[in-house]
Amino acid sequence: MSDAVCTGFEAAGITAGIKKNGKKDLGILYSSVPARAAAVFTRNLVQAAPVLLDRERIKSGRCRAVVVNSGCANCCTGEQGLTDAKAMAGYVAAELGIDEDLVLVASTGVIGEPLPMEKIQTAVPELVAKLTPGGIPDLAEAIMTTDTVPKMVTASGRVDGKSFSITGVAKGSGMIRPDMATMLCFVATDADVAADMLQSALAAGVDRSLNRITIDGDTSTNDTVILMAGGMSNVKIDDDGRMEIFQQVLDEVLIDLARALVKDGEGVTKLVEIKVNGAVSDKDARRIADTVAHSNLLKTAFFGEDANWGRILAAAGRAGAPMEIDRTDVFFDDAQMVKDGIGCGKTAEDKAAAVMKKEEFRITIDLKTGTGSASVLTCDFSIDYVKINADYRS
Amino acid sequence: MSDAVCTGFEAAGITAGIKKNGKKDLGILYSSVPARAAAVFTRNLVQAAPVLLDRERIKSGRCRAVVVNSGCANCCTGEQGLTDAKAMAGYVAAELGIDEDLVLVASTGVIGEPLPMEKIQTAVPELVAKLTPGGIPDLAEAIMTTDTVPKMVTASGRVDGKSFSITGVAKGSGMIRPDMATMLCFVATDADVAADMLQSALAAGVDRSLNRITIDGDTSTNDTVILMAGGMSNVKIDDDGRMEIFQQVLDEVLIDLARALVKDGEGVTKLVEIKVNGAVSDKDARRIADTVAHSNLLKTAFFGEDANWGRILAAAGRAGAPMEIDRTDVFFDDAQMVKDGIGCGKTAEDKAAAVMKKEEFRITIDLKTGTGSASVLTCDFSIDYVKINADYRS
Repeated sequence: MSDAVCTGFEAAGITAGIKKNGKKDLGILYSSVPARAAAVFTRNLVQAAPVLLDRERIKSGRCRAVVVNSGCANCCTGEQGLTDAKAMAGYVAAELGIDEDLVLVASTGVIGEPLPMEKIQTAVPELVAKLTPGGIPDLAEAIMTTDTVPKMVTASGRVDGKSFSITGVAKGSGMIRPDMATMLCFVATDADVAADMLQSALAAGVDRSLNRITIDGDTSTNDTVILMAGGMSNVKIDDDGRMEIFQQVLDEVLIDLARALVKDGEGVTKLVEIKVNGAVSDKDARRIADTVAHSNLLKTAFFGEDANWGRILAAAGRAGAPMEIDRTDVFFDDAQMVKDGIGCGKTAEDKAAAVMKKEEFRITIDLKTGTGSASVLTCDFSIDYVKINADYRS
Repeated sequence: MSDAVCTGFEAAGITAGIKKNGKKDLGILYSSVPARAAAVFTRNLVQAAPVLLDRERIKSGRCRAVVVNSGCANCCTGEQGLTDAKAMAGYVAAELGIDEDLVLVASTGVIGEPLPMEKIQTAVPELVAKLTPGGIPDLAEAIMTTDTVPKMVTASGRVDGKSFSITGVAKGSGMIRPDMATMLCFVATDADVAADMLQSALAAGVDRSLNRITIDGDTSTNDTVILMAGGMSNVKIDDDGRMEIFQQVLDEVLIDLARALVKDGEGVTKLVEIKVNGAVSDKDARRIADTVAHSNLLKTAFFGEDANWGRILAAAGRAGAPMEIDRTDVFFDDAQMVKDGIGCGKTAEDKAAAVMKKEEFRITIDLKTGTGSASVLTCDFSIDYVKINADYRS
């Protein structure tokens, strides 16, 4: 991670008083030049007002600024919510002197409460005044809800001897599952990416990163990933070879952010990769990996550092994808715990117990029936997850 | 609940030393006359040895005895597991002097460990010696794992002035979700039910009861429901009218057992019915009810007594069934919290907060788009659930 920012972008994050605890809650990402933009949004049928607004505005493929608040999701707020989201963008557009349609909006926090518009209106001039190329850490802080650390990643690549950068910020840390598994994620690059390539690069990258993580299996109503490409590095991404390089760097940023999200998931003490090999198809492998990754019984066993492999097989068996139990192997990192559906005994248990004590490890399920494979990042399910979510609104 | 038993049945439950804690762990249900039998089993692809054995034996439609142990699931135990399950039935058949094929077997407990056959063989003579018409409570106790109370229900009905009874026992209390949402359930009736009616009565009853509850969304590898009909009441169930009466009593027993299972779910402090009305179809209503009933975020909010209706809508929206958020209403018991997708404000919040303090309440989601409806029983997700499952094997 790094707090660098791509050439041509500025950011800021301040306290507007939306959160009760006095922490930063209003942020902005601004491109000093007209930027191309792509976005992906929640697949939940219940969609927050800013998501509805952005879906329309992103059709232009252009964006100059994203304004975002934490502390209030502006969701289930009806017509008023949409009016408020537009007004929030309007304040920023007026202050920056740019076209209102080029401002996207994002919100995160409690569902069902209206945005405190007066506080936002009052704060926007200060927010814009604080824009600076070094403001990314403040933005990352301003979008946090139950996150305990801000998430920022910068990576760079080279094309024809010229370098470009990609910087991303993201926040979790509950309501996380594949199908757009993030709350908010904003990515900026100074590469000059062809319009038709930007959306497909983002979709492909998200599918390999944010769509491969789960914390609690719930899906947010506000999930938004926005990618802005300003082009100030003068690196043109306009053919397949260059696209491949760009995609690699983008994937790196998104995967690092995805890992950071799971690691900082609510109450999380363990980061666990569920890897399925030997399935009939990749799709089947994914179904099994997803089901295992979401098993509450298994996730509580992770928390208890109990190598309860029976729960792994029980979860795999209900995934709805073909498996033959008497061919199935299970590994904890490199320690084989199950061979052909039967436990490997005491020595294996001891090895697996040692693996479970680590903060990060991998469970591999080899079905030995085909060549399909998939991988999903999950976490343990702790007493703190329950505590955090039992009292979230109070 | 009652500890009565139907005429013609005897039961027992003893300590065989399978559980480490010295509690009862071996039980039997015995019909003194040849009984008709029906059964439903787990849909998990990973199936325990006793399930594999019973699936074959139940094809005859006959059963004299069910022998069951707790403390060990005899699952993921390969060929040895099947040999052990058969041997367990064999000991009982020999002791009772009945045909081995008429003995069904069930196991529950830790997955992946072999049955301690010597302990079982030693204990079977004592188990059979203790058979008595009043032994149902002992059987109910012997099948408990993390259950805190035994579950028994007896109900009776009348046909042509003659009465018949149905008695059921069941155990939970983790790995519970619809799709055969129980670990083990044994039901006996002294009605004389026609062979072709018994299986369909059981399937229909389970669909309205054990398939409508969830505790943690995991599915067991050992789920087994067995219904035995001995006929000693001389009440013949042989036409549609009589079948309707029998089905009503059977449903009553199964629904009472299902409620008892959720109420005694691991760490449960709240019993919550999720009712969906106004869906396009019953199937859509069921999908939404299931998704809401499984939401960890909502279940932790129940535990925290937080009327977080945003999480209800967010879960409904990801269910994969049609809904229009701006027509959706939500009620906590009779208190309306959401009207046309928008929160009803402070007074409603106060009313809902009072509802949340109750041990049992209902959440109604009215989609107002059709006539489909469904109901699922769920529970809260507590700190104790995590504690219980983090340490299950130790």
